[in-house]
Amino acid sequence: MTIDADADRRHMQSALELAAGGTGWVSPNPMVGCVIVQDGEVVGRGYHQRFGGPHAEVHALREAGDCARRSVLYVTLEPCCHTGKTPPCVDAILQARVGRLVVAMRDPNPRVDGGGLSRLESAGIDVTVGVCEAEARRLNEAFIKHITTRRPFVTSKSAITLDGKIATRSGASRWITGAAARAAGHRLRHNNDAILVGVGTVLQDDPQLTTRLPGQRGANPLRIVVDSTLRLAPMAQVADVAQDRRSLIATTDQATDAKARALQERGVEVIRLPACGDGRVNLDALCTVLGERGVASVLVEGGAVLTAALIKQRLVDKMVLFVAPKIIGSDGISVFGPCGVDTMEQVLSLRDLTSRQIGDDVMLEAYPAWAARSLESDRMKESTR
Amino acid sequence: MTIDADADRRHMQSALELAAGGTGWVSPNPMVGCVIVQDGEVVGRGYHQRFGGPHAEVHALREAGDCARRSVLYVTLEPCCHTGKTPPCVDAILQARVGRLVVAMRDPNPRVDGGGLSRLESAGIDVTVGVCEAEARRLNEAFIKHITTRRPFVTSKSAITLDGKIATRSGASRWITGAAARAAGHRLRHNNDAILVGVGTVLQDDPQLTTRLPGQRGANPLRIVVDSTLRLAPMAQVADVAQDRRSLIATTDQATDAKARALQERGVEVIRLPACGDGRVNLDALCTVLGERGVASVLVEGGAVLTAALIKQRLVDKMVLFVAPKIIGSDGISVFGPCGVDTMEQVLSLRDLTSRQIGDDVMLEAYPAWAARSLESDRMKESTR
Repeated sequence: MTIDADADRRHMQSALELAAGGTGWVSPNPMVGCVIVQDGEVVGRGYHQRFGGPHAEVHALREAGDCARRSVLYVTLEPCCHTGKTPPCVDAILQARVGRLVVAMRDPNPRVDGGGLSRLESAGIDVTVGVCEAEARRLNEAFIKHITTRRPFVTSKSAITLDGKIATRSGASRWITGAAARAAGHRLRHNNDAILVGVGTVLQDDPQLTTRLPGQRGANPLRIVVDSTLRLAPMAQVADVAQDRRSLIATTDQATDAKARALQERGVEVIRLPACGDGRVNLDALCTVLGERGVASVLVEGGAVLTAALIKQRLVDKMVLFVAPKIIGSDGISVFGPCGVDTMEQVLSLRDLTSRQIGDDVMLEAYPAWAARSLESDRMKESTR
Repeated sequence: MTIDADADRRHMQSALELAAGGTGWVSPNPMVGCVIVQDGEVVGRGYHQRFGGPHAEVHALREAGDCARRSVLYVTLEPCCHTGKTPPCVDAILQARVGRLVVAMRDPNPRVDGGGLSRLESAGIDVTVGVCEAEARRLNEAFIKHITTRRPFVTSKSAITLDGKIATRSGASRWITGAAARAAGHRLRHNNDAILVGVGTVLQDDPQLTTRLPGQRGANPLRIVVDSTLRLAPMAQVADVAQDRRSLIATTDQATDAKARALQERGVEVIRLPACGDGRVNLDALCTVLGERGVASVLVEGGAVLTAALIKQRLVDKMVLFVAPKIIGSDGISVFGPCGVDTMEQVLSLRDLTSRQIGDDVMLEAYPAWAARSLESDRMKESTR
């Protein structure tokens, strides 16, 4: 058997693009794409489209039909070997008599984790693992964290000026970034299972926190407001839970039952969590609760104090900053609250900083050093197998 | 005559790359590159290497020799038609019997401004203007501003964290950015005729403000310290003017003669300028003086208050920000001082924001709206001719 590594990468790239079609619709499942190639020609394509629906491999095998026999099947994640909402994909692949399997990454799900590959290899199928692995891991970074730790992948998103301000000294902030960046912000909402904000942001702006994509349906994430004493008014827009909109208020025992009831009557869920020494909601406990409920990804949209608290407690896995070509000056409001840093050694470090043009603005992405470290050790584990 | 626009762009691109070889060595002249093509083959290359030395066309014509006859000559700037430090290039081109001339941009120098092209056209040479014009204008943005306004092109450079801080609350700042970004900062020094800093920065860090390029000689720009009362100690590193290092202190009548003399005795030039209402040096007057002395480009390296003053007075033409994947928090020191902005309409706007990876950091570049506007009207003038 001759392997064309370049063709492998090309087909896997197509499979990754297909996989991304499931963004926002499959969580807490991973996004998966599949391409079936017979004699250099693509004969089947598929991706996991909806949570509970057929897996990518099943869609692609259906399209390929008899052409799947002795074909090469490219899939962005190791095929499953257990019966979940659907039967195991390993069986479907064996039944179709696929000749070779190319996989971007092993499934970190403890119920799979190599089991699918072993069964296929034992059945005599040639298996290649690790093609476009970095891209595949990035695509499913939230899934990977959630399935291995049962805690959500937390992304902090902010819109800032060149000098790191989110508002003028008077609080004016509409809009820092342009239309393209704001649309990208709505896509981020669609991609996440939940949005998290502090009650201060809600009191100041009364935002809807819904997903509004131009000319396209988006999924509304669960809206979570951190509000230790229930200052949120029941008439706030975020408490309007019509249609698919859901809201959850994370509070503490400092909130009165009457206030909780008023919100519950509007359909908002209120959960009481332990408080920290300063009376604020214990954010670590909140992450644990969310992860156990199947919330795999959380988008933090401020304010500055909540975001700084999450950063200091090392609960953030990824930072996204939309930077606008504007200057407000040092008397404006900084994107993150005080962090108490004195020496350069205490400065919070991130890694894998990348930039991308979004309309007139630039989007910066980076991973806090502590979060990246856990990913790295994961990769090292892989390579020593 | 058939024109291959794609080949034209390709050869002009080469000429622009050659031109960049003169960066830092030719000011206040423009950087110019030249490529001579005979039957599709490059037969001559040249660029303006040193102020006062031969122009790009002369270098390229020398290399081409007889092959220049009926060739196509690509040059990034209109050939000169006046005798300056060297004889006019127009004569050399006519003498070599070049068949066709391709020019990226007209020379904005009022003594040329189309005159070179007219003479060549009258002599029967085919002329194409405007190939890769945007790149050519960007390469010589400092020259263009200086030759048309007699004022320097001012670039503000800062190294900041993701949240716009240049130091921790205790003043620690070494180093915010990584080695690659710091080397790019030294290249910026080499590229500029002068560096401008506030005396506060000098008192705090005692910097050398010299160009230190790894494994390569760099030009040391004129070091300018803004110091309204001459707080600068004569033993400061910036007052050491050995070798090609020169320093200029811009002060006001508030400074005593004794203090001025102590600095002058070390070889530092001291100039007295009008003061603003708040007693600070009038920066607009400083720019005028520098421009008249032939300083075509100034790099501002802080501090935050000086940079904010230059921004508010609209004296900055370009902003360069090296952004490191670090977070300091709102209790750190912001990159620009207070600007007194309340409403979104008062926010200072920039345009043409671009980003580029530099090692682990990202370099952002943007042009203040007022500066860009003058460039735009220049372009509009062009297109209506």
